[in-house]
Parts: sequence; C-alpha cells; structure tokens
Amino acid sequence: MVKITFPDGAVREYQQGTTAMDIAKSISEGLAKKVLAAKVNGQVWDAIRPIEHDAALQLLTWGETEGKSTFWHSSAHLLAEAVEAQFPGVKFWVGPPVENGFYYDMDLGGRKVSEEDLLAIEKKMTELAKQGNPYIRKEVSKTDAIQYFEKKGDEYKLDLLQHLEGGNITFYTQGGFTDLCRGPHIPQTGLIKAIKLTNIAGAYWKGDEKNKQLTRIYGITFPNQKELDEYLNMLEEAKKRDHRKLGKDLGIFTFDDDIGPGLPLWMPNGAVVIEELEKLAKDTEERAGYKRVVTPHIAKENLYLTSGHLPYYQDSMYPPMELDGTKYYLKAMNCPHHHKIFAAEPRSYKDLPYRLAEYGTCYRYEQSGELFGLMRVRCLHMNDAHIYCTKDQFYDEFKAVNEMYLKYFKIFGIEKYVMRLSLHDPSKLGKKYVDEPELWKETEALVRDVLVRTNTPFVEVQDEAAFYGPKIDVQIWSTIGREFTLATNQVDFAQGRRFKLEFTNKENAPEIPLIIHRAPLGTHERFIGFLLEHYAGKFPVWLAPLQVKILPISDRFMDYAQNLLESLKNADIRAAIDDRPEKIGRKIRDTELAKVPYMVVVGEKEVNENKVAVRRHGKGDAGTKSVEEFVQEIRQQIKNRVSE
Amino acid sequence: MVKITFPDGAVREYQQGTTAMDIAKSISEGLAKKVLAAKVNGQVWDAIRPIEHDAALQLLTWGETEGKSTFWHSSAHLLAEAVEAQFPGVKFWVGPPVENGFYYDMDLGGRKVSEEDLLAIEKKMTELAKQGNPYIRKEVSKTDAIQYFEKKGDEYKLDLLQHLEGGNITFYTQGGFTDLCRGPHIPQTGLIKAIKLTNIAGAYWKGDEKNKQLTRIYGITFPNQKELDEYLNMLEEAKKRDHRKLGKDLGIFTFDDDIGPGLPLWMPNGAVVIEELEKLAKDTEERAGYKRVVTPHIAKENLYLTSGHLPYYQDSMYPPMELDGTKYYLKAMNCPHHHKIFAAEPRSYKDLPYRLAEYGTCYRYEQSGELFGLMRVRCLHMNDAHIYCTKDQFYDEFKAVNEMYLKYFKIFGIEKYVMRLSLHDPSKLGKKYVDEPELWKETEALVRDVLVRTNTPFVEVQDEAAFYGPKIDVQIWSTIGREFTLATNQVDFAQGRRFKLEFTNKENAPEIPLIIHRAPLGTHERFIGFLLEHYAGKFPVWLAPLQVKILPISDRFMDYAQNLLESLKNADIRAAIDDRPEKIGRKIRDTELAKVPYMVVVGEKEVNENKVAVRRHGKGDAGTKSVEEFVQEIRQQIKNRVSE
Repeated sequence: MVKITFPDGAVREYQQGTTAMDIAKSISEGLAKKVLAAKVNGQVWDAIRPIEHDAALQLLTWGETEGKSTFWHSSAHLLAEAVEAQFPGVKFWVGPPVENGFYYDMDLGGRKVSEEDLLAIEKKMTELAKQGNPYIRKEVSKTDAIQYFEKKGDEYKLDLLQHLEGGNITFYTQGGFTDLCRGPHIPQTGLIKAIKLTNIAGAYWKGDEKNKQLTRIYGITFPNQKELDEYLNMLEEAKKRDHRKLGKDLGIFTFDDDIGPGLPLWMPNGAVVIEELEKLAKDTEERAGYKRVVTPHIAKENLYLTSGHLPYYQDSMYPPMELDGTKYYLKAMNCPHHHKIFAAEPRSYKDLPYRLAEYGTCYRYEQSGELFGLMRVRCLHMNDAHIYCTKDQFYDEFKAVNEMYLKYFKIFGIEKYVMRLSLHDPSKLGKKYVDEPELWKETEALVRDVLVRTNTPFVEVQDEAAFYGPKIDVQIWSTIGREFTLATNQVDFAQGRRFKLEFTNKENAPEIPLIIHRAPLGTHERFIGFLLEHYAGKFPVWLAPLQVKILPISDRFMDYAQNLLESLKNADIRAAIDDRPEKIGRKIRDTELAKVPYMVVVGEKEVNENKVAVRRHGKGDAGTKSVEEFVQEIRQQIKNRVSE
Repeated sequence: MVKITFPDGAVREYQQGTTAMDIAKSISEGLAKKVLAAKVNGQVWDAIRPIEHDAALQLLTWGETEGKSTFWHSSAHLLAEAVEAQFPGVKFWVGPPVENGFYYDMDLGGRKVSEEDLLAIEKKMTELAKQGNPYIRKEVSKTDAIQYFEKKGDEYKLDLLQHLEGGNITFYTQGGFTDLCRGPHIPQTGLIKAIKLTNIAGAYWKGDEKNKQLTRIYGITFPNQKELDEYLNMLEEAKKRDHRKLGKDLGIFTFDDDIGPGLPLWMPNGAVVIEELEKLAKDTEERAGYKRVVTPHIAKENLYLTSGHLPYYQDSMYPPMELDGTKYYLKAMNCPHHHKIFAAEPRSYKDLPYRLAEYGTCYRYEQSGELFGLMRVRCLHMNDAHIYCTKDQFYDEFKAVNEMYLKYFKIFGIEKYVMRLSLHDPSKLGKKYVDEPELWKETEALVRDVLVRTNTPFVEVQDEAAFYGPKIDVQIWSTIGREFTLATNQVDFAQGRRFKLEFTNKENAPEIPLIIHRAPLGTHERFIGFLLEHYAGKFPVWLAPLQVKILPISDRFMDYAQNLLESLKNADIRAAIDDRPEKIGRKIRDTELAKVPYMVVVGEKEVNENKVAVRRHGKGDAGTKSVEEFVQEIRQQIKNRVSE
C-alpha cells in the first residue's frame, strides 16, 4: 500500500502502482473524466503513470494552469501526428505549449503550407483525436533512442538526444506517432474536442538566423467546442479593442522615435485618464491613512547595492550615468527611496503602521523585441506604496490592502479575478529565500488567512515567492475574457534589515519593521492599456477625457450652447461644443465615434424651453431635461464613479 | 560740443569734456547727489570722467544694479585704505563687488584679524568716508605701474600687472590709497554713509589650495544708515527663516547621501504642499484652456541635437546612458517633449492657441559647490507649459500669461516684484541670436506693450535675451525683503522651425507657430524654498500640511475628539488629534511650535455644549464655535486660498 496525501491534508491508502486516474475514479467517475494530469510530490506526472511510493497528490484538470499546458503539449503531439500523415518524411524539432495554445517547429523539406493544408491538418487532427488513442510513456536507452531516430532520419531529434543523458530518456506514443519527450501528457487524444490552427510562421532552428528556417505551426485546443468559440470570439473582439489602435484614435498616447522605444508620451486625453486614476488612488489612500511622498528618479549606485538590486537586477535597469566619479541609476523601483524617508527621522511604535505612497515613475530595461504598446514598456508610472508595520499589525494591514483591491475591482467592473499566492520552498532557505523559517511560516499563514477569511479566490504556487517574502500576484480578466496580470502585493522581511530600518518598540528597544510592498492599480501604462480593451475605449463618465459634447443644430443656438458650456465647466464637467458648420446627424455620428459618453443637442425647442435634449453614447435618446437636472445627473455619476 | 542721447531718446548738446556729473547737475542738484556712475555707450564709467565724443548716456544711481556694484567696488577700496592704516605693510590681491556687498583678499603677513580689529577697521572706514575724498582715475604706463608696486613691495599686484597690456592700465586713488584698478568708481567716499564688515574667511590665492592662504574680509555698505539697518534686520530674520532649517523641522524635505547631492526627498508634509501647489496650478491652467500631458524623463540624444541643447547645453545636463547603441539623456527641460506632442497629430489654425502643461521633472547638473538647500538643486519639478500660437494670437496669449503671474502673486501675498525684460542686440543677429530681425522687433514691441498696458513694473536689459527670442525673468521679494528669481516667460520663434512644427493656416498653407515657454510658479524646489522663508514656515491654511490639531484636555474627551476628527476629515480638512497624556498647556505649546494654523481645545464645557474652543496660530483664543460653523470657516479659507 502507498499513502496518498491530498491538498486538503487528508491521507488515504491505495494499492502500490495505483495511478492518479484510478484514485480520481475511486472518488467519482465525473472527476476522472476531467483529469488531465497530476502533481505528484510537486512534479507534474501522467495521470496514468503508476505511483509506487507514498506521495502528495494533486489532480490537475483544465482549471489548473499545469492541466492546460499538459493538454496543449499533448495537442502539439497530435498536430505532429497529423502533419506526418499529410506530409510523410517531415522532420520535427520541438513542440511546446505556450501561453495560449502550442506550436510545433518542423522541417517540411521546402514544402509550403497553404491555408488549405492547415484546414486539412486540422481535419486530420480531429479524426485522430476521435480515435481516443492513449499517450503511452516508455523509458528507452540512449542507444535505442538514437537508433529509432536514425532509422526515421530525423537529424533534429538526434541533435536533441546528443544533449540528453541515458537513464533519463522517454518516448511518448499516441496512435502511429512516437516522439522523444519528457512528458507529461493527458491520458488520451479523445479529450481534445475542439481544435484550431491559428498561424504559420518561419522560425530559425535554435533561434539562430544562421541556421535553416523551419516551419512553425501554431494552434490552440479546448476540451469542448464552446470554449473554442468563446476564445475565437474573444480574439476577434480583442482585435477591435486593441489598445494600440484605440489609444491612437482617442488621443491617449503616442510614441516617438526621437524619445525612444517603450517610452510613451501621454497625450492630453491620456493625461486626463491619468489624473482621474491618480485622484481615485490619492482619495482612497488618504482615507486609508497613507502619507504621500515625492522622490527623485535617480539615485547613486550605493543605494542599489544596499537594496541588493545591484548586481542581481542590473540587466533590468538602465545603464548608469557617471557623474563626479559616482554612478547614478534611474530608479527601477521606489522602495529604496521610501526606505530612506522612513529612515530620515527616528520612528516609534506609535508612528506605525507608517504608510508611504507615491505615483513614482520607474524605468526598466526591456529588450526592444519584448516591447508591446502600453503592455510592455520601459517607463512605468506606478501606483506604489510601502507599509512599515509591526508583526502584530501585519494581518490587519495586509487585509486592508486586499480590501482596497476588491474596492477597485468593483469601481472598474472587474468581475473575474484570482490572487496568485506565491510561497517559498523550505529547502531553498538561505539560497533563493531569506533564511527566516519562522517568519516565512508566520507570514504565509497570515496571508493565506486573509484570503480565506475574505473569501477571495486564490491559488497557491510553491517556490515562486520573492526573495524577501511571500507575494500575491493579481490576475484579472477584461470584459471580453482576456487575462491580465495587474499588480503585486508583497511581504518583505529582508529590506528592513538591509537598510537598517528600525523603530523603538513598546519595550523601548530597537526593532525592524515588516514591510508590505503594494501597487493595486499596477502602472498607468498597463492599467490604461487594460481599461482601453475592457471598456472598448468607451470610458465611464468619470474617466472620459471629454464628458459632454454640445451639438448646436445651427449657429443660431451658439449663445445658448456657450452658456450651457459655462454651466457645465463651472460644475467641473469636461465639456466642449461642436461648432462646425455640419448637419446635426453628422455631428452625432462623429461624437459617437469619439466615444463621448453624453451628447446634448441644442435647437429651437430646447432654447425656447430652456432645456437640453440628451443622448447617451451607444444608447441614443435619453430624453429632454432641464440644465440643472442634467448637471446633477452627471455630477452624481462622476462623484460615485459609476462604471458603465 | 558733443551730442548726448538719453535713454528716452532725447538728444542734447554739451561742451566737449563734460562729465555725467556735470550733466546731472544741469538737470538738478538733487539728481547729481544721487549719481554714482554712468553708462556711456553701454560701458560703465566714472561719473566724473570727461566725455569727449557723442555718446548715449544713462545715469546710474543706487536703484540700478550697476550703480550698486560700483558703490560696493569703491567700498572695497575704502576697506583696503582702512586696513593699510591699521596694518601697515599689508599686501593686496583683488577686491571685487559681490551680490550683496564686497570683499578684499589680502596678505597680512601672518597676522590674525580679530573681531575688535574688524570694528576698528569699520571705524577707520567711516572716518575716511567722511573726508569725502574723490576717487581719482589716472592712466599709467606699465613701467610706471610696475615701479610703483615694486617700491611698495606688493608681489600680488605685480602678478596682476604681468597679465595686463600697456596703454590699458589705470590707477585709482582716494585719500592716501592707490590701487591698480580698471574702475569705474563713485565720485567720492562721502557717499558711503553706512558700513558693516560682515565676515572674515580664508581664501587660497587664485583659488588654488596649493597656494598661500590669504585673508578675505567681507563687508557691505549703503548710502544711508536706514538701509543698512533694514539689511541687517533682514539677515537676522532670514536666518530664523532659513528654509533648510524650517524644511527639516517641519518635515518638508530631506537629503540623503545614498540618493545624491541636490536631489531632495520630499517628506509627507512637503508632498502635501506640492499637491496643493499642483492643484492650484492645474485649476488655474484648466480654466485658462491648457491641456495637460505627461512625458518621460528621458529621451534619445537625437532629440537634443534637434533642439540644439546638445552640444551647447551639455555641461548643464546629466551625462548620457548608453543603451542598445543609443545615448539617452535625462531631460533638462520639457520643451522638446512637448514639441513632439504638438507634432504627433496634424494641427490646423482652429486648434491654436494650443497650450500644453506639465509638472515635468527635469534634471540639471550643477557643480556640487553651487548646490544650496532647495535653491540650487539638480532635480527640478517645473510648473511648465508651452503655448503654440499664431502671430495674431501672440499679444493676447502673452498678456494672459502675465495676468496669471499677477494672480499668483496675489494668492501668495507677494507685493514686490519686477519683470526683467531681456532684449536682443541687433548687432549679434545670426550669432548670439536667431536671425529674424523683424520677428525680434515685433515680439519685443508686443511684450513691452503687454507690460506697459498692464502697468506691470519692469526693467529692460539689453543683450540678455534667449537665443530664440525675448524673455522675461520674474524677480520677487519675500516678506522680509529678500530677492528671488522665480520664473521665466519666453518667446520662441526658433524651436518651431528646428522641430518642423507646423499648422495649416486659414489660407490652407503650412505655417510655423510661435511658441511661448512659461513657468509662473518656477520649480517646486525654489518656490517652496521661497515660501518657507516668506511665511516663516507658517503656511496659510490651504497650504498647511496639517490644518487643524484637536487637543483633548483629557482622555475622557477622546470620543468627542474622534467624532470631531471625522467631521473635519469628511470636509477634506487635514486634521489630527494630540492624544498624548500631556497637560493642555504643553499640547498648545507644541502645536504652536509645529506651526499648525488652527488648534481646537476639547474639554468638559465644549462636550456639553457640542462646541469647539478655537485657537489661531500666533493669535491665541479665537472664541467658541459650533463644529459646523468652524468647519465652514476653514472650508471657506481653503476654497479661497486665503493668504495670511
């Protein structure tokens, strides 16, 4: 018998040689149908691989990241099997899962793959999937493996084999296709119910442009057709909502060659959104007892040697400027500057928790090939703060930060989110992780407790904590279902010591504070990029760069329009007049295109009655109102930051 | 006869060999008594030096900068005469005027100067001044000059003579003292009515620490005792109001060695002042039709080659960072970034005036010896904006900027200010100044016209314009009478062309806009430094980091105090409770020291009557009020930004 420990701590005994699939079946047939793979003592395994020793077991389904990536890895093998059927003699390089789907690189001996070929391969994959062929794992000797691929004539796999050690080599076979592969894989091809090949591209062998160019076929698969349809729909919608296009059309941001890649210039409309986001953050943080600070964008090398960012993080920083014999760096994070402010005055336990907030602008080096619109940039306006607290205060502080996240999600209509709790690995204490076993246990438990007690959806990830403590990465989904990593919330019990930060505790002794790093709104760059997609550019009233456009039917009503404009401006509503000599229909169309939330049509009737005819963006006529009523309505929406 | 042209353009004839003093006397005896020197064809001359040819003449009095510096230069000679009387055998190096007063470097052969010596020298100077000895100019041959100082045994003056050419050497003599000097000087010592020697310091000969250390005596003189008294009083007051001390005591800013010199960290209280100033600027600029933008702090070298800042301004910039083979610079000014935003979209005359504003943070290199608190720094948060307009719009735009200055002065209680209008020199067109003679004339006339028509006090300075157009430097005086240069307002008709900026004019043709650079509040650094001195740290309510401190007489009133705090916070008033177990007298004293504008004492009586007992900083008891009344009073003061 082997003892199996489940994630909830329960332990049960099974026959030696049992499999994750057997165990799933013993729980329920329904569960067994969903099992794609399993985590055995932290390693991802085939669900049908025998378990010979006591083990900690976690069943992996489509809901888990590792379940998905196993599914896509197996789909890559299915692709290869189908390609081999269509193009005999094809040679294969590698075929990994990626963020959304998978690809396989192959040498087709000069043959081109057409759109029709792609459809034919897709069809073949569907046919092979239906056969429900199991993915069979087999350990092979290096000699046998070499012999197999020599016979097949695949020099790419032979190249891979060169770098592998014997005793550690496995083949996976499904149907008529065998691949050199470490695995793991899903139980059988029949689980792959919906298939879409999305792209063909060229890829140099080993990424080196001196090598031969291989053909790369991208695809994505799902366990049901509905999810594929949703995904394709999401892709199409995302294309329409591309933040780069919307950002340009709406005058939000621009790039310029003379400024530099990854360095957005925020145009007037973008600056309005920034101002509103900062106002929200400042209000929220003010109420939550944060103090604001302003720090320079540069510092001496020594600051980053103290923090430990140099030399470890150097590749992600801009290179230094050498001045008066000292190296200065652009800051890539705000924490060391904030620590210096904490250290600038003597602190007592009465001053704690001490919360320092700043919209600090940081600069990080990303390879130019990695840059992407506002999503991957080199200049980051960060909604940053650091909370210095005692151990006793930690739970409440961490909970308050968590609640701030949830409050923001509500304001922005973010309905789907998951907190990803990254924990340490006790075996790496003193190496990858600061050697404070008790503090790790304590803070991890406190953080988990906050998430559990507040019913916050979260997943735990082993061995992905920061050097200085456990952390939470926040993942959110836009209205069209695309995932974004927004922000982090980190515990830190190392920097306090490095910076010799201390406060006088109740016993009148010096003590090092715990530090929480948090940035609920992430960076302006990524968050506004997200919002552009999330709202499809149709910002809610409080965020809209222009809130009301006044459309006079003719020049005769300009005086009335001007008075109306004054009333709106006096109420701090962002408004403008469309004074072009255009027909009203054209004015309405153009204002709709500019995604202005409110339009006000002014003509004979409105002037006589001293009213306004209101149109809501995307919804049309919203009736006739008095100016006062209209102003009040918008003021309320702005004040309450209504998300719609 | 010689033709004399006066500043107002009037021309009059005088006998050849007449002097500025003769001419002054011919106008009025009163004027003659005030004349210290004269500007003859742009050069400063002795008032009693004969004029042999036609000339443009400006009489210089104590009111003119050159009048003052001549006065102080002559005072340095008087100091030397007095020292020679007290310490026979003293040898002199140089004795120039400085910003406030003068100094003389001398070799006393090892003798130390005590405080008593200083008083004795001062007394001797007063005695010599009363003699009313004229400063007599004499041209001498190099041989005679060398002979004179060889005889006197002054090797320092002989060193100076080595570097002078014959035919160009003059001596000045007053009473029994003769100095090698280019002049000019005031007519006679009797004009020096009030004398104060302020400091003794060591100074290496020629500033080289390998050389001998000389004794430097500093002094300041005035044409009457009253001004000296005022000056000494101002110095004493300025010492109390030193922005560096107040800045530390009030938690406004700090410096840190690991961040770097000239790079202030703004502490929480400083950040509040910054926020309030930015709110004021944003409100004001919003109403004035400015659009806000946000731009990165760095840019590629190429941007500054286009603007022309490289290589000419390179010494004032931080050194470059080299990334992916490209040099990046920290921005030392925001204009090039704003020009790129102007250029990012096609512009028509309908879009003009186009006003772009940003609180841009710039970095400039100042020698570390030049750095001084917030007054000379390397990091500058600038209240910057650029206005792109047509020639027709220029007058109104420039006038609006000028009015904005005056509005700010009113808010901050700045009663004394002067605009310094810097003009070009037509003879340097195409060299020091961009070669657009018509535009220079036009814009200088327009700028002067704005100042004259708005009754703004201003002085004109020849040959001090920017390369790209005339400019105004704004000088203001703090309540204790100290002068600060605050901000500039510049016309620019060169950058538009360099950046190929254009708009489509009414004739549908491309045209280059005029640009106005303006920064009415200067930088946060200098302005907050000024405000600390101006208000002696006692910020008006709207700017005060903490606006109300609640002082409960005992713990029994803490609930009431808490409720009061909530009411104040809900009204966006910055408030806190002094919850220390201290006597009320101590609480009041400490709150006074912290310069909090309002104190609210809470005891039995207040709780029973549901009222608050209000104390105003520096004024004491302000009566008992209902909470509502008190909140309203403060809200009004904040809203109207009352300066007191």
